[in-house]
Amino acid sequence: MHAIAAALANPARRLRRLVLTEEAETALAARLPKPWALAPEHAERGRLDHLLGRDIAHQGAALLADPLAPPPLAAVLERKGPLLVLDQVSDPRNVGAILRSAAAFGAAGVIAQERHAPEETGALAKAASGALETVPLLRAVNIARTLVALRAAGCWVVGLDAGGAPLSGPALAERRVALVLGSEGEGLRRLTRETCDEVAGIILPGAGPVLDSLNVSAAAAVALYELSRRP
Amino acid sequence: MHAIAAALANPARRLRRLVLTEEAETALAARLPKPWALAPEHAERGRLDHLLGRDIAHQGAALLADPLAPPPLAAVLERKGPLLVLDQVSDPRNVGAILRSAAAFGAAGVIAQERHAPEETGALAKAASGALETVPLLRAVNIARTLVALRAAGCWVVGLDAGGAPLSGPALAERRVALVLGSEGEGLRRLTRETCDEVAGIILPGAGPVLDSLNVSAAAAVALYELSRRP
Repeated sequence: MHAIAAALANPARRLRRLVLTEEAETALAARLPKPWALAPEHAERGRLDHLLGRDIAHQGAALLADPLAPPPLAAVLERKGPLLVLDQVSDPRNVGAILRSAAAFGAAGVIAQERHAPEETGALAKAASGALETVPLLRAVNIARTLVALRAAGCWVVGLDAGGAPLSGPALAERRVALVLGSEGEGLRRLTRETCDEVAGIILPGAGPVLDSLNVSAAAAVALYELSRRP
Repeated sequence: MHAIAAALANPARRLRRLVLTEEAETALAARLPKPWALAPEHAERGRLDHLLGRDIAHQGAALLADPLAPPPLAAVLERKGPLLVLDQVSDPRNVGAILRSAAAFGAAGVIAQERHAPEETGALAKAASGALETVPLLRAVNIARTLVALRAAGCWVVGLDAGGAPLSGPALAERRVALVLGSEGEGLRRLTRETCDEVAGIILPGAGPVLDSLNVSAAAAVALYELSRRP
């Protein structure tokens, strides 16, 4: 509901179809007063189940919309806040949750790979909870080359990895940080890691042989929080 | 794979069935050397898809096991670290991710409601990534009454809510903290909030009209991180 209200309110979004149960229409109108940019079609929950596929938790609402055209990197660099670079983060819910945290902590943008990264599906948009409308999501063909470009543009590129020194927001307060997150299973790839200015990690006092890392979206939230801390 | 290896290695787990593709058996054996506590059945990926249901991302491996018997609250209180109390957090992936962060940050345990909380399904166990074996997950019939019991046992009960003063780990370093997290949509219920010793929040410099909160599992990770900071 949150993601749909945000997309409907975004004039840059090309909207195709809005399907709502009667109940959802009332709930959406309470959140975003009518008139809407698109007239809703009405459906029973069962038809939405069928439309969206089994096992999709919906709130009686579905919106079909085109992805936003991503702005050029130069435009993103004009925005304030750190950048996030996702190196093969493949789970759409993780990418969505990272966008949501990026919006909440005032990040300038998120850069994912063109391949090995999820499409902007409903699952991603739902996890982003409206953040797709406020945080630019860019696609890069080659992550290592993108990191070189970010360094050339004055960014300090920090790879997030358990092996590094503790990440410190106050120590990085004077720098424009681009934070690089590796894949859920493998972490940073060798070339990605070697292209970073530094590698830093989150101290996990409970880490042990059974469990030694955070979920990638939890790690992103903690790192963005740490970067938002000022001296 | 991670969750299955951890459960297989836990002697307290009652194991029922282990179904693996040939490839998954090799990968699991690399992670946890044989002999295992349970002999695997072999299957093709297609049979696992059928067994687990469509849209379940598996790595060619499935384990059926009984939930662990939760320890009494008194035993959890003998463990070090903060406690987490989940007031109607209903998404199994969020509960699983919270368990994983609880393990990584050395929390003593997680208390969920007996009702309005997800079962220990595969989705929860997978998101927990082995943390179900190391962090006790308790069930409480009544959350407000549980908070009263925690206060009587010497805990300082902190409700996490955007409206509160900033959460500060160093300021709480001398206290045994029980951190209360509300539901994904509604936050803390009134009675829950009123039963807390204090309400504190995470500062979100990018919060605005479109997006004003973190995902509950991201909020849990950030709060646990802040609580792990010492003066």
